[in-house]
Amino acid sequence: MNSEQIQELKAHIGNAIVFDDSETLRSRRFDRWCIKHYRDWRGQNVEAPACVVRPQCAEDVQKTVNFARDRQIAIIPFGLGSGVCGGVEADSSQLMLDMSDMNKMGDINEIDLLATFEAGTNGLVAEEAVAAKGLTIAHWPQSIGISSVGGWVSTRASGQFSTAYGNIEDIVYSVEVVLPNGDLVTLGKAPRAASGPDLRHLIMGAEGTLGIITKVTLSLRRQPEHRETSAYYAPSMEAGFVAQRQLVQSGWQPPVMRQYDASEVARNFPDYVHDDSALILLVHEGPRSRVVAETQATSELMQSLGLTPADHKVTEKWLENRNHVPEWTDLLKQGLIADTIEVSASWTKIDEVYENVVAALGTVPSIVNASAHSSHVYRSGINLYFTFACMPEDAADMESLYFECWDKALEATAAAGGGIAHHHGSGRLRKPYIHHDLGEGGIEIFKTVKKALDPDGLMNPGNLMPD
Amino acid sequence: MNSEQIQELKAHIGNAIVFDDSETLRSRRFDRWCIKHYRDWRGQNVEAPACVVRPQCAEDVQKTVNFARDRQIAIIPFGLGSGVCGGVEADSSQLMLDMSDMNKMGDINEIDLLATFEAGTNGLVAEEAVAAKGLTIAHWPQSIGISSVGGWVSTRASGQFSTAYGNIEDIVYSVEVVLPNGDLVTLGKAPRAASGPDLRHLIMGAEGTLGIITKVTLSLRRQPEHRETSAYYAPSMEAGFVAQRQLVQSGWQPPVMRQYDASEVARNFPDYVHDDSALILLVHEGPRSRVVAETQATSELMQSLGLTPADHKVTEKWLENRNHVPEWTDLLKQGLIADTIEVSASWTKIDEVYENVVAALGTVPSIVNASAHSSHVYRSGINLYFTFACMPEDAADMESLYFECWDKALEATAAAGGGIAHHHGSGRLRKPYIHHDLGEGGIEIFKTVKKALDPDGLMNPGNLMPD
Repeated sequence: MNSEQIQELKAHIGNAIVFDDSETLRSRRFDRWCIKHYRDWRGQNVEAPACVVRPQCAEDVQKTVNFARDRQIAIIPFGLGSGVCGGVEADSSQLMLDMSDMNKMGDINEIDLLATFEAGTNGLVAEEAVAAKGLTIAHWPQSIGISSVGGWVSTRASGQFSTAYGNIEDIVYSVEVVLPNGDLVTLGKAPRAASGPDLRHLIMGAEGTLGIITKVTLSLRRQPEHRETSAYYAPSMEAGFVAQRQLVQSGWQPPVMRQYDASEVARNFPDYVHDDSALILLVHEGPRSRVVAETQATSELMQSLGLTPADHKVTEKWLENRNHVPEWTDLLKQGLIADTIEVSASWTKIDEVYENVVAALGTVPSIVNASAHSSHVYRSGINLYFTFACMPEDAADMESLYFECWDKALEATAAAGGGIAHHHGSGRLRKPYIHHDLGEGGIEIFKTVKKALDPDGLMNPGNLMPD
Repeated sequence: MNSEQIQELKAHIGNAIVFDDSETLRSRRFDRWCIKHYRDWRGQNVEAPACVVRPQCAEDVQKTVNFARDRQIAIIPFGLGSGVCGGVEADSSQLMLDMSDMNKMGDINEIDLLATFEAGTNGLVAEEAVAAKGLTIAHWPQSIGISSVGGWVSTRASGQFSTAYGNIEDIVYSVEVVLPNGDLVTLGKAPRAASGPDLRHLIMGAEGTLGIITKVTLSLRRQPEHRETSAYYAPSMEAGFVAQRQLVQSGWQPPVMRQYDASEVARNFPDYVHDDSALILLVHEGPRSRVVAETQATSELMQSLGLTPADHKVTEKWLENRNHVPEWTDLLKQGLIADTIEVSASWTKIDEVYENVVAALGTVPSIVNASAHSSHVYRSGINLYFTFACMPEDAADMESLYFECWDKALEATAAAGGGIAHHHGSGRLRKPYIHHDLGEGGIEIFKTVKKALDPDGLMNPGNLMPD
């Protein structure tokens, strides 16, 4: 995209929403992917887009997509920039669509529990708007204060309360999207349908490669009547997984159930360390009588399995601090390169995933932390959220150590039969490993669909799927 | 497909699994789509496939798909033939893949609650196999005794217990499918993933147009500790919908909640008629203490909203008889052409859908029944299951009356803002109305994907999407 084309675009869709000043371009060089912050901190060049468009409405998006397609210019979508897997990376030939000005909210339907948000709406702003009416989206990613509703959908996000309330695909009612051909399409009309494949799922998780999400309608919940918290010590991660499995498979649904290994207990809840125990935090919510029944049943089950009660204040403490997002540069300045890696596996595989990944990370030179907690429970399995940190003598080694940690963790996960991406999306970071989840056959299906919907390959090229 | 090609196919994949005897061909002329039974009963010619292949394994399916593609022969999949929307219709140039011999079951994993079934496995056989281990698929379509696991996935089926346990898309863990290019692909590896779009959703609901499902792994549940039933009279359908909405939006999840209008109460539960009241049947299941809490809360809520308790034996009666499937010819011989039409809508639209569809059906000449019940509840809305019956003087008029009923019902549903297909699939019957759900944009996406994956248009041509 050359400067002549930028001027042409300004004339086409309006000066006011096309930016090519260096400050704007610099601010859109990357999202929250750790490695970009590292490179920037090291003074390495991190490329910026040719220009940034801030659409005000779906028509602006359509016009931009059509303009870019006519000139074979690639489009990189940018929500609120909370991504951590390298899904957003524009070079100086490319156009960035910054969705942050598309943040209007539609009416909140208090009968149907439906609310519509433009894609760039901040998650917490959306939640607070429905909360004012006694409702909740019930989608609480740690990034809620810095992520967008469109980004949630685009990356197949999960929230902290997913064990009862589901992940974003269980909350989305409909999605409006601008396709690579410029068409504006709304997918999802009814509470449930059997009118062919559920096409919303082509857009959820596509990370901008199949179109630009412009608007999302979410199916809300009423705020629960009652909430209680509880906490238990498990003698080992394995024993804790057994307890979580039994609880969920018995039909109980605490929206939050998180299990920290001893290393994470020491780091996150130092006042609650208990030998080498793992710590499970639970939030129970819903009608009061059901919450009472659930806390009672949970207590009985946990203790019958050899777990012991912990002070539930630790769960309250977690609730208070749960949406803090660290700044990478603060860690870098301390000499640390760190990240989190979320994966999932069925129950019979999760112990091996936990042990093997922690062991694999432990072989990386200069590693100072390799730990995990679980945070999303299913009938058939659970996720794990690993945290690693390396502290090399020479900061120049950080990048290769970073990728070595990711490689060791994802290869160990796959070797133990786990899935390599639970809820942060895949981006460029997991691209080399995505065959473990999809198989060559699945990748081929995606590529065939991509080629059909985006024949020129202009939507977020280089993201998600191997070349 | 000519007889030479049939011989060639026999030589290619084995005599024993290729059938072109007239008895076999006749038996595969149609599934349970009412109108085909009508035509057959009237002595009209109903076309049969050129030959029927009964694959024994995925490799047989691949070989058949490759053979057919090389010769540009269309393939029509046939599960166990319980479809009611015209998704299966082969002409004498086409090859039918009868999946009924692919009915082997894999191991049942009692830790992960996973069980794998070949696509042709009978639903009730599958359920009974896991029930023997104290587990349940928890998917109970009325057709469970005559439908296949692959058919459930292919048509996006719902079961009677869906309000708590979800529809088939909430139960499928992974799907194995033979693509139009002959590739065998398994989609779905982990309890949950964010590794690109969830490609399982391309296969679920595709009704054979994008590939042949060969195997399905389902995520099971443990059988509930306790079950109770209850029943309530609502002074009107509207009042009943309000009560169902309030119950579900309060966070309660009875797996079964069905609301019959006065006409259906009189027909199905004549001993339980109460003025012109609608009747709501509920099944409460799960851990005992939760069931007790739920039945108590349900009773309080229902009565606070002006509903009155009915004898819960009516729910027991429904439980006993719920899987009966009528034979169309029995009705035809009584002079009746009848069918059911399931749709869905958000809460604010459901009253209008109910009233307008019943009224619209009432304008069809010779109509003797236009009634409805609801059976699947969501946070944002509910389904309706209409039943119509016409009894014309001249049986020759039945076909046009049948299509008039469908047309009036689906157009009235769409005009009131409802979705035209809840869970039977769409087939040829809903094809002319599918734009109401997908929009022209959605249809275009599907066609683009179809063209990419099945460039020769050989997989179940003519089904699902408008030409």
